[in-house]
Amino acid sequence: MQPRDLRKPGKRLSHTLAANIRSFRRERNLSQEEFADICGLHRTYVGSVEREERNVTLSTLEVFAKALGVDVPQLLTPQDEKN
Amino acid sequence: MQPRDLRKPGKRLSHTLAANIRSFRRERNLSQEEFADICGLHRTYVGSVEREERNVTLSTLEVFAKALGVDVPQLLTPQDEKN
Repeated sequence: MQPRDLRKPGKRLSHTLAANIRSFRRERNLSQEEFADICGLHRTYVGSVEREERNVTLSTLEVFAKALGVDVPQLLTPQDEKN
Repeated sequence: MQPRDLRKPGKRLSHTLAANIRSFRRERNLSQEEFADICGLHRTYVGSVEREERNVTLSTLEVFAKALGVDVPQLLTPQDEKN
């Protein structure tokens, strides 16, 4: 186990974030690498967020949201909320 | 400047988080210390978040939200959004 795994958000929240990033990114026809470039982050980092392995900080959430043209609360809200 | 200040969320987002924590906490009649205890965090840490000095992680946002009985998107949404 790596140090970054010692403290992590709940699976549901990590999953919502990962699913939303992937879905918004694909809607914008961005590959993981293109999206990472826009964010100024490394592709492997974005990959690890989409694999729900990271405990991201608020400033990183803000970078993701800005790059996708959404706001941070949207990024953390399940898109199938209505169910 | 301390290391934790090197990378921080935008002022607006830090302010929304701080204002919401303070407002939800007061609605529940919790002092900063009582709230910190419920969260399992130190009072000075909660104080620094309310002073908008921190770049909190998603897992900490989740702890705050749970302790206040709200969800993470609510914690990051301006309460005067309608203006």
